[in-house]
Amino acid sequence: MTGTRGSTTPAPAPELVDAGFGYESRGAAALHDGLNHADLAHVLDLLDREIIPRPAAVALLRVVLDASMDAIGYDPRDGEPYNSRERAFAAQIGSAAGWLHAGRPRREATRVAFRLDLRRRAAHLAAAAAGLARALAERAGHHRDTLFADQTYLQHAQPSTVGHYLLSFAYPVIRDGRRLLEVFDWLNASPAGAGSVNGTRLQRDRTTVATRLGFASVIVNTRDAMWQVDGLVQLASTLASLALTQSSLAEDLEIWASPEFDYAELAEEYTRPSVLMPQKRNPYSLAMIRGTTGVLIGHVAGMLAVQKTPSARSDNLIFAYGEMPGALDHALRMTELTTGVVATLTVNEARLREALALGFSQSTDVAEQLMVSCGIDYRTAYRIVGGAVRRLAADGGSAADLTPALIDEIAAEQLGRPLAIDAATLAGAVDPAAIVATRVAAGGAAPEPMDAMLADVAADAGALAAAAGERLDAVDRAEHSLVAEARRVVEEAQG
Amino acid sequence: MTGTRGSTTPAPAPELVDAGFGYESRGAAALHDGLNHADLAHVLDLLDREIIPRPAAVALLRVVLDASMDAIGYDPRDGEPYNSRERAFAAQIGSAAGWLHAGRPRREATRVAFRLDLRRRAAHLAAAAAGLARALAERAGHHRDTLFADQTYLQHAQPSTVGHYLLSFAYPVIRDGRRLLEVFDWLNASPAGAGSVNGTRLQRDRTTVATRLGFASVIVNTRDAMWQVDGLVQLASTLASLALTQSSLAEDLEIWASPEFDYAELAEEYTRPSVLMPQKRNPYSLAMIRGTTGVLIGHVAGMLAVQKTPSARSDNLIFAYGEMPGALDHALRMTELTTGVVATLTVNEARLREALALGFSQSTDVAEQLMVSCGIDYRTAYRIVGGAVRRLAADGGSAADLTPALIDEIAAEQLGRPLAIDAATLAGAVDPAAIVATRVAAGGAAPEPMDAMLADVAADAGALAAAAGERLDAVDRAEHSLVAEARRVVEEAQG
Amino acid sequence: MTGTRGSTTPAPAPELVDAGFGYESRGAAALHDGLNHADLAHVLDLLDREIIPRPAAVALLRVVLDASMDAIGYDPRDGEPYNSRERAFAAQIGSAAGWLHAGRPRREATRVAFRLDLRRRAAHLAAAAAGLARALAERAGHHRDTLFADQTYLQHAQPSTVGHYLLSFAYPVIRDGRRLLEVFDWLNASPAGAGSVNGTRLQRDRTTVATRLGFASVIVNTRDAMWQVDGLVQLASTLASLALTQSSLAEDLEIWASPEFDYAELAEEYTRPSVLMPQKRNPYSLAMIRGTTGVLIGHVAGMLAVQKTPSARSDNLIFAYGEMPGALDHALRMTELTTGVVATLTVNEARLREALALGFSQSTDVAEQLMVSCGIDYRTAYRIVGGAVRRLAADGGSAADLTPALIDEIAAEQLGRPLAIDAATLAGAVDPAAIVATRVAAGGAAPEPMDAMLADVAADAGALAAAAGERLDAVDRAEHSLVAEARRVVEEAQG
Amino acid sequence: MTGTRGSTTPAPAPELVDAGFGYESRGAAALHDGLNHADLAHVLDLLDREIIPRPAAVALLRVVLDASMDAIGYDPRDGEPYNSRERAFAAQIGSAAGWLHAGRPRREATRVAFRLDLRRRAAHLAAAAAGLARALAERAGHHRDTLFADQTYLQHAQPSTVGHYLLSFAYPVIRDGRRLLEVFDWLNASPAGAGSVNGTRLQRDRTTVATRLGFASVIVNTRDAMWQVDGLVQLASTLASLALTQSSLAEDLEIWASPEFDYAELAEEYTRPSVLMPQKRNPYSLAMIRGTTGVLIGHVAGMLAVQKTPSARSDNLIFAYGEMPGALDHALRMTELTTGVVATLTVNEARLREALALGFSQSTDVAEQLMVSCGIDYRTAYRIVGGAVRRLAADGGSAADLTPALIDEIAAEQLGRPLAIDAATLAGAVDPAAIVATRVAAGGAAPEPMDAMLADVAADAGALAAAAGERLDAVDRAEHSLVAEARRVVEEAQG
Repeated sequence: MTGTRGSTTPAPAPELVDAGFGYESRGAAALHDGLNHADLAHVLDLLDREIIPRPAAVALLRVVLDASMDAIGYDPRDGEPYNSRERAFAAQIGSAAGWLHAGRPRREATRVAFRLDLRRRAAHLAAAAAGLARALAERAGHHRDTLFADQTYLQHAQPSTVGHYLLSFAYPVIRDGRRLLEVFDWLNASPAGAGSVNGTRLQRDRTTVATRLGFASVIVNTRDAMWQVDGLVQLASTLASLALTQSSLAEDLEIWASPEFDYAELAEEYTRPSVLMPQKRNPYSLAMIRGTTGVLIGHVAGMLAVQKTPSARSDNLIFAYGEMPGALDHALRMTELTTGVVATLTVNEARLREALALGFSQSTDVAEQLMVSCGIDYRTAYRIVGGAVRRLAADGGSAADLTPALIDEIAAEQLGRPLAIDAATLAGAVDPAAIVATRVAAGGAAPEPMDAMLADVAADAGALAAAAGERLDAVDRAEHSLVAEARRVVEEAQG
Repeated sequence: MTGTRGSTTPAPAPELVDAGFGYESRGAAALHDGLNHADLAHVLDLLDREIIPRPAAVALLRVVLDASMDAIGYDPRDGEPYNSRERAFAAQIGSAAGWLHAGRPRREATRVAFRLDLRRRAAHLAAAAAGLARALAERAGHHRDTLFADQTYLQHAQPSTVGHYLLSFAYPVIRDGRRLLEVFDWLNASPAGAGSVNGTRLQRDRTTVATRLGFASVIVNTRDAMWQVDGLVQLASTLASLALTQSSLAEDLEIWASPEFDYAELAEEYTRPSVLMPQKRNPYSLAMIRGTTGVLIGHVAGMLAVQKTPSARSDNLIFAYGEMPGALDHALRMTELTTGVVATLTVNEARLREALALGFSQSTDVAEQLMVSCGIDYRTAYRIVGGAVRRLAADGGSAADLTPALIDEIAAEQLGRPLAIDAATLAGAVDPAAIVATRVAAGGAAPEPMDAMLADVAADAGALAAAAGERLDAVDRAEHSLVAEARRVVEEAQG
Repeated sequence: MTGTRGSTTPAPAPELVDAGFGYESRGAAALHDGLNHADLAHVLDLLDREIIPRPAAVALLRVVLDASMDAIGYDPRDGEPYNSRERAFAAQIGSAAGWLHAGRPRREATRVAFRLDLRRRAAHLAAAAAGLARALAERAGHHRDTLFADQTYLQHAQPSTVGHYLLSFAYPVIRDGRRLLEVFDWLNASPAGAGSVNGTRLQRDRTTVATRLGFASVIVNTRDAMWQVDGLVQLASTLASLALTQSSLAEDLEIWASPEFDYAELAEEYTRPSVLMPQKRNPYSLAMIRGTTGVLIGHVAGMLAVQKTPSARSDNLIFAYGEMPGALDHALRMTELTTGVVATLTVNEARLREALALGFSQSTDVAEQLMVSCGIDYRTAYRIVGGAVRRLAADGGSAADLTPALIDEIAAEQLGRPLAIDAATLAGAVDPAAIVATRVAAGGAAPEPMDAMLADVAADAGALAAAAGERLDAVDRAEHSLVAEARRVVEEAQG
Repeated sequence: MTGTRGSTTPAPAPELVDAGFGYESRGAAALHDGLNHADLAHVLDLLDREIIPRPAAVALLRVVLDASMDAIGYDPRDGEPYNSRERAFAAQIGSAAGWLHAGRPRREATRVAFRLDLRRRAAHLAAAAAGLARALAERAGHHRDTLFADQTYLQHAQPSTVGHYLLSFAYPVIRDGRRLLEVFDWLNASPAGAGSVNGTRLQRDRTTVATRLGFASVIVNTRDAMWQVDGLVQLASTLASLALTQSSLAEDLEIWASPEFDYAELAEEYTRPSVLMPQKRNPYSLAMIRGTTGVLIGHVAGMLAVQKTPSARSDNLIFAYGEMPGALDHALRMTELTTGVVATLTVNEARLREALALGFSQSTDVAEQLMVSCGIDYRTAYRIVGGAVRRLAADGGSAADLTPALIDEIAAEQLGRPLAIDAATLAGAVDPAAIVATRVAAGGAAPEPMDAMLADVAADAGALAAAAGERLDAVDRAEHSLVAEARRVVEEAQG
C-alpha cells in the first residue's frame, strides 16, 4: 500500500503507531479467526452475486484459508489488524486482493469478527456458570443436613444448614448464566451488509452472509447494526454480577477458613504456601477471586465511560475489541477456579455444631413459640427471651440452658406474670435440628424444600449447560461449513 | 422503645444517627408506601393463619392505613425507617403493635417495600422509553427523505437521510426498554416469608402474602430471596445504557445546533438564555442529558462496589435503597427531556443539502460503480476516485463536478488506460438521492426499508408501552385491592 | 424577567424544569451562602471601580445581606439558582438589580460559591481525618503491648501487637488529610474576573475580589479559571481513599466482633439491636462505613465520566455542584462515625492471647533463629520448622511445644543431621513477647519504635488539625469581614 | 521445589495456575528488573550484616546479575513470579538460593520491585506532561493573535484568540504533572525491612537497603509499608485527570476538523485513510485519545473496587501489579500522541475570522459599553443589545452592522428614550481585535497577559521536566551503582 500512496501519504506518526495501531494490534489474536470467517463469507457472497470475478474470489479464498496469525504478522507499523491483512493479501495475490473491500468497510469486517469471538466466549462462560451451579448443588446436597448458625453482620442469626447456605449462591449464578445466553442472542445477529452508514448499492439481501456465518438473525437498521453497544453493557455488567456472587462466597470462605472460625478448609491445591512462614498455607484462590471481581467492576465503568461520546464514534468499538475479550477470559478463569474451590471444599461439621451450641441463634424461634403458645405479642416475647438470653450469657450458659423457669422469672419481671410454657414445647424451639425441620415452606432449610430446590437447581443448571452447548454446536457447525464451502470453491477451481 | 430498654440500652451515638439512620431516613419517602403495603399484607396473613388475635390485627391495620409520611415522622434519632414506624405504631396502639414483628425481620418488610417502589419506577421508565422511541420514529418519518451526509469521525461518509439517522436511536432505546421489563419481572417476585435466613416456623405458605402484594411469583431459596442483587446490577447498567443512547444523540445535536453546522435547532423552551451574553440561547437540555449520563455511570460503579462484600451484608441493600430510586428518577426525567427535545426539533433541510453538495460523500458509490461497470477491483477503483476527488478539492470543486473525462484522466495516470464509464451511470452514482435509492436491503435508507422500519419501531414501541402499562395496571389493582381488604377488616370490626 | 421576555421567550418546558433546573435547585442549599458572598464581593468591587452607581450598589448589598434560602425560594420554574436570585432581587429593587450582572456571567458567581462551600468542607474533613488519626493513636497507645497474632489471608502470620495494628491505619488517614489540604489550596484560588471566556473589559485587577472572598490566589488563565476540574478529581479520589482505609478497618472489626473471633467488641451505642432476633446486637456502624465507601467509589467514577466531554461544557461543573457537596458530607459523617467506633472499641486481650497461643505464628522467627544459630540457609530452616509444626499440629500441639529435640528429629530426617539449637535460644524465638521485642527497627512493634511512632502520629495529627483550623479561621475572618464591609456601606448610605 | 515438597504438597490446581499464577506471570515483565534490584540490595545487606555466608551471597549475586526474563522463564506452573525466580536460582546454585528468603517475605521483594518500576513510569509521564504543556505553549504563542469566537455550549460566546484557548489546556496538564511527582515521592519510599507484618528479628536498620535502591526515605510503620495504597489511588486518578484534559482537547479538535467547522486540520500522519471511502481521512488519533481516557476511568474504578476488602489482603496489591503498569503505559502513549497532534496542528485562520464575522460574539462587550457609557444597568443594556442583535439576525446582518441608530431604535422601544452612544465608542466594542485588547487583566487574552502566561507556562513546563529528569537521573545512578557494587563483590570473590 505504501508504494501506491506515493509521496502524498506520509507514514503514520510513531506515536500513532504506538498509541493507536499498537493497541489494536495487541487485540488481533481475539479477532483473527473471526476476520478469516468474515472474509470467507464476504467473498463467497460477492461470488454468488457475480460482483467479483471467480479467479479473484478463488485467490482471495485461498489466501484467507491459509491466513494464520503468523502469516499476517499484525505489525502495527502497517496499521490496525485489517490493514495488516490487506497488506499481507496484496503481497500474495496483488490487485485481486482489492476485491475484498467491495461493499464492505473495514469496520464491518471487524464488527463481524468481534461478534464471532464474543459469542463463543459468552456461551463458554454460560456453560462454566452452569458448572459452578452444579458444583454448588452437589456440595449443598452433601451438606443438606449439616447444621450451623447462619449469620448476618457475622453474628449468629438462626440455625440453618450448610446445604441451604451453599445452594443460595447457585440461584444468582444460574440467572447470570441465562443473561449470558441473552447476550449471546444479541451477539448472534449479523451486522453484515450495513455498509458505512446506511447499506450499500452492492447488497440487496443481507441474509446470505448472515447465514453463512451462523448468525441467527440480521440486525435491521444499518446504523444500529454498526454501532449498537447495549448488549456489551449488559455483558460487562453480567460479568461483574457473576463475579460478585463468587467474590461474596470467597470472602465468606476466607473467614470460614480462618483458625478462629475453622468452619471449612480449602483443598491444598487451591492454596499457596507462604515463602516466609512455614506454618502457613494461604487461601490464595479466594484472594484471586475477590481481586478479579474488582477488575471486572472497573471494566464495567471503563466500558460505559468509553461509550460516552457523540454517536458513531470509532473508539466506541475499538476499545471494546481491546478490553472485552480479556474481561470474558478473566471471568471464565475465575468461574472455573471457584468451581474447583467449591467442589473440593471440606466443611468441618464438628466445629459448626460446636459453634452453634455455644450461641443463641435459637432465640427467635423461642420467642415465636412463646408468642404462639402463650398468646403474647412478638415484641413482648422478644423482650422476655432477650432478657433470658442476656442472663444466660452473663453466666456463661447457652440457649440449651433455657428453661420454662428462667423464662417465667424474666416474664414475672417484665409482665408481672409467668408464661408457663411447656418444657417439651420449649425444647422443640431450642433444638437446632427441630428448628430447621420447621422451615418447610418453599425455599426453606427443611429436608423437603431442600430436596425440591436441589432438584430444581440441578435441572436448571442442566438446562443452562445444554442451551450453551447447543449454541456452541451451532456456531461450530456454521463455521466448519463455511470453511468447507470455501475449500470446495478453491478445490473446484484448482480441479 | 427507649423506655423499655431501660438502663441497659444506650441511645445510639450521634455519629451513628448522622451517618447511619440519617442516611436511611432520607430514603424513607421511596419506601413509605411500600412499607404500608408490606405491613398490611403481613398482618392480613397473620390474621388468616390465626397467629395474631383479631383485635390486634384490626388495630394494626387501622394505624397502618392511617400512616402518612408525616404521621410517622421518620426521625433518625429513632433509628431507621422501620424503627420509626414501630415507635409510631406503639405510641398509638401500645403492645398490640408488637404483633407486627411476628415471623418477619425488619429486613423483609424493607425488601418488600423496595421492590414495590422499584417495580413501579421500572415500568414507568419502560413506558418513557417507549415514548422516546415513538418520538424518534415520528421525527424519522417526517424526515424520511431529508438528505444529508451521514458522518463517521465527524467527516462526511455517505449520503443518507435524517430519518434513517434518527431511527437508529430508537432501536437501542426499545431494547433497553425491554430489559427494564425483564428487571420488572425480577423485581416482581416476592421475598416474603424468608425469615431471617431460612424461613420461619410461622410460615408454611409463602404465596398468600405474595399474591396480596401483586407479586407474580415467590423467590424460592430464602437466602437468595433476602440478598439477591443481580437484578439491581442489570437495572443500574440498563439505566446507564439507556442514558448513553440519549447522551450520544444529545452530543450530536449540540454539534448540529452550532452556527457552523446549523443542521438543527432546539425548540426555544428546551434552551436557556445566557445571563451575560444577549445573543446566546444555550442548548442547556443537551448538557443536562449528557451530565446525567455521567452520574448514572457512576451509579453503576457505586452499586457494584457496594456489593463487593462477604455474603448477606446489610449494606448490600441499605445502599441500594438509598441510591437506586434516585437513579431511576434521574433516568426517567432525562428520558422525558430527550423525548421533548426530539419531538420539537427543527431540522434545517436547506443547510443539510448545501453541506452535502459541498462534500464528496458520494465517492464510495462512484468507486463501487466503477468496479461494477468497468471490471476493476475495488481498491483500484478507490484509488482512481481518490485521485479525482483530490484534484477536484484542490480546485474548489465538489463531487457534482466528477466527469467520465476526469476519471479517465486519473485512470490513465494510474492504470495506463481509460475506464470509459457512461456519463449517465456516473451521474447515478453521484446524485445523493439516487444513491439513497439504492439502499433497498433490509435496514437501509431507501424509502421501502425505511417504511418497514418505521412500522416496526412504531409497533415495537407500542408493544413496549402496552406491556409496561399492563404491569402498572396489575400493580395498581393489587395494591388497591390490598388496601380495600384491609379497610374491610377494619370496618367489619368497627361494625 | 418573564414580563420582559414578552411573547418572544416561551416558558421553559416542564421536562426541562424537572430534569435541569430542578436538579440544580436541589443543590441550592450548598451554594446559597457562597452566592451571597460572591454577590457582595462583586458589588463592592463594582462600587470601588465606580462602575455601578452607589444607590444601586447599596440596594443590591442590602437585598443580598437579607437573602435567606427562604427569601429566594429557589423555585425551579424560575430557572436554576442564579435565575431565582435574579428574579427575587428584581422583585425587591427593580432595575437596580440589573447591575449585578455587570462583567460577570452567572457561571462565575456559581463557580465562586462552589469553591467557598467546598473549601470549608475540605478543611472540615481534613480536621476530621486528624481526629480519626488521633483516636487511632490513642487506642494504639493503650494497646501498645497487647499481643496478638497479626494476619494475612486471615491466617496467623506473626506475633504482633494490637497497638501496632491500629497505628497502621493512622498513616494513610493523615496522608489523605494532607491531600485534602492540597485540594483546599486548589479550591482556595479565585476564578473571579474571568468573564465568559477570556476576561472582561470591566475588570483590570482580579485580586481585589479574590482578597475580599479570602482566596489565597487568583487562577491565572481565565479559561482554566472557569473550567478546571483536576482538583475535583483529586478531591473525589481522596474521599474514596480515605473511605477505603476506614472500610478496611471496619471489615476487620466486623470479623473481630464475630463470636468465633471475639477479638473486640463495639460500644453498644455503635450497634443496632435486631428487631427479630433478641440475642443479636449488630455492628451496624461497620456496615454503614463499608457501604458508604462503595458509594464514594461510584462518586469518583461518576465525576470522571461527567468530565468526559469537549472542553468548557457546562455539565462539567453543574453536576459537580450537584454531587460533590453530598460526597463530602458522606465522607465527613463516616469519618466521624469511624472515630467514634475506634475511640470506644473494647479489645478482648485474654481472647487474643489464647488465639495466639493456639497457633504457630512464631514459626518464622524460629526458622530465622535456626538459620542464624545453626548456619543453615533460610529455605532449609523453613522446611525443618514446617515439618516440626505439621507434626505438632497433627498431635494437637502448639508452637509452645517446640523443643530442640523435635527440631533435631525433623532435621535428621531432612538433613541427615541434628541442629542442636540451644533450648533458651529456641524459647526466645517461641515466646511472642520476646519476638515482638526484637522488632526494634524503625516502624516495628517493639516498644521503642512504637513510642516513636505514637509521638510522630500525635504530632502529625496535631499539625494537620492545626493547618485545617487555620484555614477555617482565615475563611471565617474573610467572610465575616466581607459581610461587615457590605453592612458598613449600607449603613453609611442609610446613615 | 516440587521435589522437596514430596508427597505432602500437591501441585496447584490447573484452574489456580490459570486464574492466579497465570495472571501474576503475565505481569512479570514490569517487575523483573525491580526484582533483580531488590534481590541484589537484600543480599548485599545480608552480607554486610554477616547474616549470610559470603560464598552464598556471591553465588546469589551472580545468578541475580545474570537473570534475564528468559533465564527465569516465569512459567505459571511454578507459581507466581517470585516462585519462578526461586526455582530458577535453586536450579543453578542449589541450597545457597535458600538464603535469599532470610528476613524477607516474597511480598516485600515484589512491593519493592513494583515501586522501582512505577517510580520510573511516573517520572517519565511527568516529563511527557511537561512536553505536552510545552507543545501547547509553543502553538499558543504562534496563535497569540489569531482571533476566533470562543464558545460555550458550542455557541459563539466572545471574541478571543486561539492562543488563549490552547494555553488553557497547559495549566491542568502541568498541575497533573506535578501530582505525578508527588506520587513519585510516595513511590520513592522504601518498604524494605517490613517483614511480614511488623519487622523482622534480622533487621535493625532499614535505611541501608533503602539507600542502595535509591529510595529517598523509609516508610515507617511496617504494616503501612506493606499495604499502603493511597498513593496508587492518587496515581490512578491523576492518570484519568491528565487523560481527561487531553480528551476534551481531542473532542474539540474533532469538531474543529469537521468540514462544517473547518477551524483546524490534523497533520496527515495523525490521521488514517478510510478503507472504503476514498475521500476520507479520519482523525483517528483523536478517537484513540478519547477512548483511552474511558479505559483509564475504568482503571480508577477498578483500582478502587479492588481495594475494598479487609485490611492487608494480598489481592490489594497483586491486582495493582497487574493493572497499573499498563495504565501508566496507556497514559504515556496517549500523552505523546496528543503532543504530536498539537505540535503539528494547522489552524485555518481565514475560516476562524469568517466565522467570527458572521456571529454576534461581541454582544456582551457592546452591552457593557452601553452600561458604562450610558449609565444604564447591565440587564437593561443586555436587553437592548439583545433586541438589536435579533433584529440584525432576522435581516441576515452581523454584529458589524450595529449602529448607534439601531441601538437608539431599540432603546426607544424598551426605555422610551435613545442612548446616543458615540459611534467610535460603539465601534471599539464591536471590533474583535479591540475587544481582545481590553482583556488586560491577569489571565486575559490581550497580548500582555498572554505573554506573561506564555513565559510562565514555559518556565513551569521546564521546571517540571527538570524535576522529572532529576528524579530519573537519581534513580538511574542508584540502580547502576547497586549493580556495580554487586558486580564488585562477585568479581572480588572470583579474584
